[in-house]
Amino acid sequence: MTFTATVFIGTSLDGYIARPDDDIHWLTSRGEQAGDMGFFGFLESVDAVIMGRNTYEKVIGFGEENWHYGDRHVGVLSTTLPEGADPRITVYRDLDGLVADLDERGVKHVYPDGGRLIQSFIRAGRVDRFIISVAPVLIGAGHRLFGDLPHDIPLRLDSVSDAGGGFAQLRYTVERRQRA
Amino acid sequence: MTFTATVFIGTSLDGYIARPDDDIHWLTSRGEQAGDMGFFGFLESVDAVIMGRNTYEKVIGFGEENWHYGDRHVGVLSTTLPEGADPRITVYRDLDGLVADLDERGVKHVYPDGGRLIQSFIRAGRVDRFIISVAPVLIGAGHRLFGDLPHDIPLRLDSVSDAGGGFAQLRYTVERRQRA
Repeated sequence: MTFTATVFIGTSLDGYIARPDDDIHWLTSRGEQAGDMGFFGFLESVDAVIMGRNTYEKVIGFGEENWHYGDRHVGVLSTTLPEGADPRITVYRDLDGLVADLDERGVKHVYPDGGRLIQSFIRAGRVDRFIISVAPVLIGAGHRLFGDLPHDIPLRLDSVSDAGGGFAQLRYTVERRQRA
Repeated sequence: MTFTATVFIGTSLDGYIARPDDDIHWLTSRGEQAGDMGFFGFLESVDAVIMGRNTYEKVIGFGEENWHYGDRHVGVLSTTLPEGADPRITVYRDLDGLVADLDERGVKHVYPDGGRLIQSFIRAGRVDRFIISVAPVLIGAGHRLFGDLPHDIPLRLDSVSDAGGGFAQLRYTVERRQRA
C-alpha cells in the first residue's frame, strides 16, 4: 500500500500560479475575500506535506505563526538545502528517495506544493487528485501550474463549485487503469 | 454603441485548445458525450462570427452540412485569403478594419473563434465574456487559449457548472471601469 497525493492550489484563469517574479499578490489578495476555500479541512486529511526549495523559502518567509503543518511530516526536495537546516523538515535529494521514505513512514495522504515539485509529481504519475481554485483574472505571464507531458493524463471531474470571492473550484481524480 | 464579443470555446485543463499538430480529437470525442454544452443556444444570441484563416479552413473541412452559421455575418481575418473565396464570408485584412465594419453593420454580439484571433481580440480589449468548457484531461502541449498580455485582465465569475461528459463550464465577464 502506497500513499495518494492531492494537489491543492490556486491559479489564474490562464493557468499561472505566480508571476515571473514569483509575486502571488494577485492570488492572495483575492483569496482573502474568498476565505480558505476548504484548505484547512483538506489539510486535516493530509499526513505529509512535500514542497520544493522555492516554496519552502516562501513558507518560512511567512513567519513561524504561519506554519500551518503542525506535527505533520514535512519534506523539502532540494539538492542544496543543508540537511539540518530546519528541525521541522526532512530534506530529500531526489524524488525516488522521497517516495521510498514516505512509503516507509506509512504515509497515506500527501500534499505536494509548489510549481516544479507538482510537475515532477505529475510526470512521475504520483498525483491522484487535483483541487484547483481558479482566480478570476488573466495575468498573462508567469509560472504555470502544468508543464509538458509525455502523454495525456485523463481525469474525472469530481465536482465544480463557486468557492466565493470570484473563485471557481474544480476537483478531479486522475483516471488510472491500475495503480503502479 | 458598439458590439460585445463572447468567446465560447473548449480547452484542456492545462489550457490548450489543440495539440501542436492542430488535432482536437481529445476535445471533440469527449464533447460528443457531453452534448452541445449550450453552444447552439449561445449561437442564437450571436449576429456575427469572426475567425482566423486556420479556423476557417478547419470549419470548411467539416463540410457544407456543418456550416452552423446560417445567415449570420461571418468574417475571416486573413492577409492572404482571396476576397471572393467564399460567398458566405467577408474577408478582413486587419483587426481595425474588421471592428470598424462590424460597427458599421450595427452588429451587436460577436463570436470570435480560433486561438490567434481570440488572443488578438483579448489584447485589443474587445472580449466581453468568456464561456469556457474545460475538458477533463491534461494534454501537455499544444496551442494555448490565452497568450501573453501587457497587463492583468480582471474578470467576474458569472457561473460555474458541470456541463456533462466530465466538462466544467466557467462563465466570466471582463471587468471594465468603462467601455472604450
